[in-house]
Amino acid sequence: MRFRSPAFRRSSGAAVFLSMLIAAAPARAQAPAGLPQDVVATAASLHREALAGTRAYEIVRSLTVEVGPRPAGSKAHDAAVAWGLRTMKELGFQNVRAEKATLPHWVRGAESGEIVAPYPQPVHLAALGGSVGTPEAGIEAQVIQVPSLEAAAKLDPAQVKGKIVFYDVHMRRSKDASGYGEAVPVRGMGAVAAAKLGAVAVLIRSIGTDNNRTPHTGTMRYQDGVEKIPAAALSIPDADLLAAQIATGKPVTFRLKLGARAEPEVEGASVVGEIPGREKPEEIVLLGAHLDSWDLGTGAIDDGAGCAIMMEAARRIAQLPKKPRRTIRVVLYANEEFGLSGGRAYAEAHKDELARHVMSGESDLGSGRVWRISSHVDPAKLPIVASLARLLGVEQGNNEAGGGADISTLAPARVPVIALAQDASAYFDYHHTANDTLDKIDPKDLDQNVAAWAAVAYAIADMPGDLGRAPEGAGRE
Amino acid sequence: MRFRSPAFRRSSGAAVFLSMLIAAAPARAQAPAGLPQDVVATAASLHREALAGTRAYEIVRSLTVEVGPRPAGSKAHDAAVAWGLRTMKELGFQNVRAEKATLPHWVRGAESGEIVAPYPQPVHLAALGGSVGTPEAGIEAQVIQVPSLEAAAKLDPAQVKGKIVFYDVHMRRSKDASGYGEAVPVRGMGAVAAAKLGAVAVLIRSIGTDNNRTPHTGTMRYQDGVEKIPAAALSIPDADLLAAQIATGKPVTFRLKLGARAEPEVEGASVVGEIPGREKPEEIVLLGAHLDSWDLGTGAIDDGAGCAIMMEAARRIAQLPKKPRRTIRVVLYANEEFGLSGGRAYAEAHKDELARHVMSGESDLGSGRVWRISSHVDPAKLPIVASLARLLGVEQGNNEAGGGADISTLAPARVPVIALAQDASAYFDYHHTANDTLDKIDPKDLDQNVAAWAAVAYAIADMPGDLGRAPEGAGRE
Repeated sequence: MRFRSPAFRRSSGAAVFLSMLIAAAPARAQAPAGLPQDVVATAASLHREALAGTRAYEIVRSLTVEVGPRPAGSKAHDAAVAWGLRTMKELGFQNVRAEKATLPHWVRGAESGEIVAPYPQPVHLAALGGSVGTPEAGIEAQVIQVPSLEAAAKLDPAQVKGKIVFYDVHMRRSKDASGYGEAVPVRGMGAVAAAKLGAVAVLIRSIGTDNNRTPHTGTMRYQDGVEKIPAAALSIPDADLLAAQIATGKPVTFRLKLGARAEPEVEGASVVGEIPGREKPEEIVLLGAHLDSWDLGTGAIDDGAGCAIMMEAARRIAQLPKKPRRTIRVVLYANEEFGLSGGRAYAEAHKDELARHVMSGESDLGSGRVWRISSHVDPAKLPIVASLARLLGVEQGNNEAGGGADISTLAPARVPVIALAQDASAYFDYHHTANDTLDKIDPKDLDQNVAAWAAVAYAIADMPGDLGRAPEGAGRE
Repeated sequence: MRFRSPAFRRSSGAAVFLSMLIAAAPARAQAPAGLPQDVVATAASLHREALAGTRAYEIVRSLTVEVGPRPAGSKAHDAAVAWGLRTMKELGFQNVRAEKATLPHWVRGAESGEIVAPYPQPVHLAALGGSVGTPEAGIEAQVIQVPSLEAAAKLDPAQVKGKIVFYDVHMRRSKDASGYGEAVPVRGMGAVAAAKLGAVAVLIRSIGTDNNRTPHTGTMRYQDGVEKIPAAALSIPDADLLAAQIATGKPVTFRLKLGARAEPEVEGASVVGEIPGREKPEEIVLLGAHLDSWDLGTGAIDDGAGCAIMMEAARRIAQLPKKPRRTIRVVLYANEEFGLSGGRAYAEAHKDELARHVMSGESDLGSGRVWRISSHVDPAKLPIVASLARLLGVEQGNNEAGGGADISTLAPARVPVIALAQDASAYFDYHHTANDTLDKIDPKDLDQNVAAWAAVAYAIADMPGDLGRAPEGAGRE
């Protein structure tokens, strides 16, 4: 999971109101528009059985142990593709294949940082993804601290020129990831804003909620016509330290060395496998997750967990005595983190069949439990979503779901979206850090996710009707 | 805090039984042997007032922000001495001075590790303190895993020769630090045991209870006549990863590069300051902590917390309208971690006055709350310890307390020991790692420690009698 705009946390009052009305309506009134009883019965049994234990943890264990960090453009990304093809075949998927995508190749290189004055100390930092490097000797400059992007915009360029801007934005912990939506814009836009004022580099307080010396990386952007300056994230204890030295009132000087660089693009691939439908195999229920990870951790929660959840959900459906009417397609996307290479390539390669994609969903918020179902479907079909909410025993959210970064590329084709919100309370303790490792996953939480996705995917793939087409425009959440 | 032998967890049944008898006796019966009421009243008021808030957090904040990592032999150790002298004077201590100690100077240098086969992945590791380095190209060898020192001793040298031994010892979380006592011998002795079998290097699972990618360093030892082989600790998630690759049954190859080396010894110092006694200034109540830290963190919990607790406890006593009868001496020891330089130098320099040391205590287990008071005093004086336990509202432990590594050097002179056990449940999540930073300290916990030490130090310094002399031999806990 990489970036959600601040709009992420806005809700559509009208949609919420509508879904509340539906939830409040007597069961008899909505039954005709909801899911048929036989579909519900099978979905419920898939759900119940997955809660008793699944193979998902074993799948993510295998990915993290046998591949580990797999950033876009690396050899490990290729190893992940090979792992995906092999594992899907082993799990019984049909039509398993690699689908080409062109990948950027950014390399971190060696990096270090230290406070030079007034009280010299080394710090832990990580270049933001896409950052340029520094000269080999590093950049040494005075630090100016700002609490937000907005505050930076009000600075006099004379104050900033030749300095390192330190964005000291504190992220709020939240179940729904809204704290991430609030804090993350500085990661993407901080360097451009600072460069416009004449800064020579940017440091940000890691966008995270932990207190570990494990900095959080993530993508940043440059803008044509604005100088590209290096950008790195300090771990949260190191941001505290820098802030404390600044609070002494003495000038603070920092030295930053980043070996980051862009290498030529490389050919890579997403991995696709299917459980063919028994009646309408040409109609697709798409379950997505992303195969790549950042380079710092082993990509267990981001997004090994999502890969495992979706593969295992589909595998369990394939084990049913009677396959669902439609095809379930699992896509393990290439390079989500660094520009949605797989998501864009998929939308292009499959453009002729997107009208037959009856649903898309993505799991990319770790392994926390599913607590809400949201959607972006024909509003007339919301009773089906209400049926699913009851089936899963979770809240029903609004009809503004984006669903995930990779599947956002399908929005122009108005592919309906089902989104299962995961509890993100702990996710941003580890997200995009070296600490994104297998031990952060509770297998029972993973099972609960598998149960939810298996039930949803089966129900939509097997029900007689469909979710219509999504409203125009991408879901905003 | 560095090393406690496994004996740490043994208790003396006789002493426990005796203290239980005392605790169970009616108050009237033991009052004559306990503390006088006026001493108790003042100690209780010191205790109560400290619980309302102290300067201890501000003291440790200053040490971590203005000095940070301060390993033996480094320039930062000198900076810490300057900080200690300045801060003691600011806090109103008398006779503030540096007392010389000769320090070893071990330097970590650059270090890295990676699993080369079967599934290549980088790992996070840290050389153990005192380890030799590897050749510049590193050491690459097959890994053999053992669950304990005992298991290693049973290996056939033919199995080990030319390999890297991976000690996969899992530490148990515990309130009383007994889990550390169980697990830590492998850190000190693992390299010698492996070298005797022909191993080329040693990896250990970090001696810690966390799941962060922040390896735990700590001292290790070599033995004359046994080859010195490099030794490093893997972070706990990395130990899991290595174990998981080994569990696949394929041969696992590892490459280790350590830039560690020993530099010549340097002159350093402990910092000493006093609150002179009003009647018997030549009698000393010694409050110790250690000034040095490992190089990875900023030494907040190990042992900035102890320095702050002891300095603030003494400062509060100095603020009383009437000073206690005896002198309270605070010693911030040089280089505890890497060989007790300050502790040994103190025992030598003060040998002529150790008979007049009426008590020694040390705070070196982080900032967790005090929950037990133990001792190593004349058994006839245990009613005084029982009085203190009631005053603090904590359990009374046995009379086998060692008290702390630095003050263990005073045992031959039979200096009485009072030990306040801290809750160590979370301590080993951060101990000896980069994560030992200020944010790990709760100021209220620190205040509770200050309250306890202020009450104890005042009571012993002011009471008419004393604790006698400690039994022969060092306390074993």
